[in-house]
Amino acid sequence: MTITFADVERAARLLDGAVLRTPLLPSEEISRLCGCQILLKLENLQVSGSFKARGALVRMLALDPARRRAGVVAMSAGNHAQGVAYHAKRMGIPAVIVMPKATPLTKIERTRRLGASVVLEGETLAEAEKVAHDLASKSGFTFIHPYDDADVIAGQGTVAIEMLEGDAGFDCLVVPVGGGGLIAGMAVAVKSMNPEIEIIGVQCESYPSMLLALRGKPAECRGYTIAEGIAVKAPGRLTVPIVKSHVADILTVGETALERAVQTLMEAGKVVAEGAGAAALAAVLAHPRRFRGKRVGVVVSGGNVDARLLASILMRSLCYAGRLARLRIQVSDVPGMLARAATIIGDAGGNIIEIYHQRLFADVPVKFADVDVVVETTSLTHVTHIVESLRTAGLPTRVLSSSADGD
Amino acid sequence: MTITFADVERAARLLDGAVLRTPLLPSEEISRLCGCQILLKLENLQVSGSFKARGALVRMLALDPARRRAGVVAMSAGNHAQGVAYHAKRMGIPAVIVMPKATPLTKIERTRRLGASVVLEGETLAEAEKVAHDLASKSGFTFIHPYDDADVIAGQGTVAIEMLEGDAGFDCLVVPVGGGGLIAGMAVAVKSMNPEIEIIGVQCESYPSMLLALRGKPAECRGYTIAEGIAVKAPGRLTVPIVKSHVADILTVGETALERAVQTLMEAGKVVAEGAGAAALAAVLAHPRRFRGKRVGVVVSGGNVDARLLASILMRSLCYAGRLARLRIQVSDVPGMLARAATIIGDAGGNIIEIYHQRLFADVPVKFADVDVVVETTSLTHVTHIVESLRTAGLPTRVLSSSADGD
Repeated sequence: MTITFADVERAARLLDGAVLRTPLLPSEEISRLCGCQILLKLENLQVSGSFKARGALVRMLALDPARRRAGVVAMSAGNHAQGVAYHAKRMGIPAVIVMPKATPLTKIERTRRLGASVVLEGETLAEAEKVAHDLASKSGFTFIHPYDDADVIAGQGTVAIEMLEGDAGFDCLVVPVGGGGLIAGMAVAVKSMNPEIEIIGVQCESYPSMLLALRGKPAECRGYTIAEGIAVKAPGRLTVPIVKSHVADILTVGETALERAVQTLMEAGKVVAEGAGAAALAAVLAHPRRFRGKRVGVVVSGGNVDARLLASILMRSLCYAGRLARLRIQVSDVPGMLARAATIIGDAGGNIIEIYHQRLFADVPVKFADVDVVVETTSLTHVTHIVESLRTAGLPTRVLSSSADGD
Repeated sequence: MTITFADVERAARLLDGAVLRTPLLPSEEISRLCGCQILLKLENLQVSGSFKARGALVRMLALDPARRRAGVVAMSAGNHAQGVAYHAKRMGIPAVIVMPKATPLTKIERTRRLGASVVLEGETLAEAEKVAHDLASKSGFTFIHPYDDADVIAGQGTVAIEMLEGDAGFDCLVVPVGGGGLIAGMAVAVKSMNPEIEIIGVQCESYPSMLLALRGKPAECRGYTIAEGIAVKAPGRLTVPIVKSHVADILTVGETALERAVQTLMEAGKVVAEGAGAAALAAVLAHPRRFRGKRVGVVVSGGNVDARLLASILMRSLCYAGRLARLRIQVSDVPGMLARAATIIGDAGGNIIEIYHQRLFADVPVKFADVDVVVETTSLTHVTHIVESLRTAGLPTRVLSSSADGD
């Protein structure tokens, strides 16, 4: 089965008015950080929080009235679930979403709020997918695949049409890759609209499934990533050949780069992206020479991220930047020592925001105590200065926040 | 001095291509939360991170070549500083920004990065402003006022032109109010373009200076607010009469509403707003009956917010929602008690993410110990269930996170 530009154009007409034409926005601050011209395609602002709403709608519009009445089923704990649920509700199609049993409640709630029935079955994604297929065959639901489907691929490709209509000067587009539906659809469109533009895919280091497939190697993917949305073990049957012929490169990014990209999008870009949604920017930040001086379209593919993860990323970024440091100070266990340490930190310009005097469990001799403090600082140099001031005053001090410690 | 719609139109022509035409985006999830149709005007995505870049540019374009060579001075620790610095650099105008001595380093850095010289003088904003005026008169700099200036007001008013060109059906626009430059400019434009549309201003409870001025009362403003950008003690001489004739209402919002709006914009809207930038949404969330069923344009005026504040707001929002709870459990100081408490919490479906066994300083009899735990939960009901399970097992437990405690 071939997917043509005409299919993507048809999908664009179908989507018109039913999904948002999301903003394509330059960011000067992010461009400065990257050493190239960055334009962000903000699919995190899309209905249902990601580009997945596009493909899901095109697929469901292809169902005849009897199929629509019978309903749809999908397996996803993430953006695909929300894309399907969102449009199914709008179209009056009953939707069942199967998620693995251990799915966090916030994801379940988010999908239920969009009107879908959530079924929790299976220990793994593979088991949950089997349950979804069983439901489809037994109950007459249509299974909506997250990426290995011609309608879905054509729908996701509309992102490229909007980008190229919005800016004529792109040198390359950078696109997150999980199963490959988004990049395949976009590549088909770009190769017709302007074949000069390079398409570059991005995967996370622990799930380089498309990269391995292109090299004819078996998929070996495992591990934790904050980019759950692209942590796919096997790319699509339809997507691999399209990526093979149209995509210039697949870059991989590690967890630190992903975190930095999420934080950069928040602080410099003022938008919230999930890990997978920030993967394209992570690649540009991590491979600056590859992009230097170019005009780069970065797809921010989704924004559905847990508030707690977001908060930790922000706090960790402050530690990395030396704007927050956790110190362990050893003081002798006599009156006034805590005040002395606090005075030294204050005199050195540090703002103590948390203090924790621990003696139990401390690996110090009796008659000494450990004081852990969290200090607001201005730079890594400032952290070093505070530590030196404490040490000079006879208070042995260690930096506990890893980055400032030189790790 | 009167400001006319022609002035705002002229400003729009001057700004074309030099600032962003920011997105005007509907948000279904936020609309559902508010009970009305919400369209967000995302000035947090504007160059320099707020709408202030508009007025600053119009003002500086009015300077003759000699004035431009001499340079400009402004007093601001926030968005006005960045707006002036951003365009001064582009235009090759030397810029000095005066900030009070206690300004956090991140704000100083952000302005320096945009190329301005930062002078730290004065204990208060008023003292810093005096220093800026002195610099202007002694050194020939032009003082760029943040709001009480016809060019600045006309520049900010262009936000309304873009909103009304982007959507024909608004019932009302909701606008944050500090000195009143933004709302005054917008009101002038709206009253010419479509006088049916209501303009509603929003101030924070601790700084209701425009509201008091309209009532002819002296300004009585003090206190801490996360909406620093609108914490202005005295509105403008030019802005008050415009607001008096064109603005339907000034609503006030408290700190909890502001926090909730920042968090809603992040979680449901996928954008980062500062406290003042979220004030308009805070008012819609806090006064739902005033807006029910209407089509409401909400100006998200800026996104320059400290990462640490953002992280705390996210964590606090999880506590409010019962998705995170801090518990203090009293255990007898014998082996196995910590394991027992942890088991009870796990069996009740709580996920322990932090644990802190404290004995020193605890207000419990000797032979007992306090264990503080942070538990991931699913709702306030879930928190109550966990607490009851612990108490039933003979472990006295208190909820430390205030909201779940019923405060």
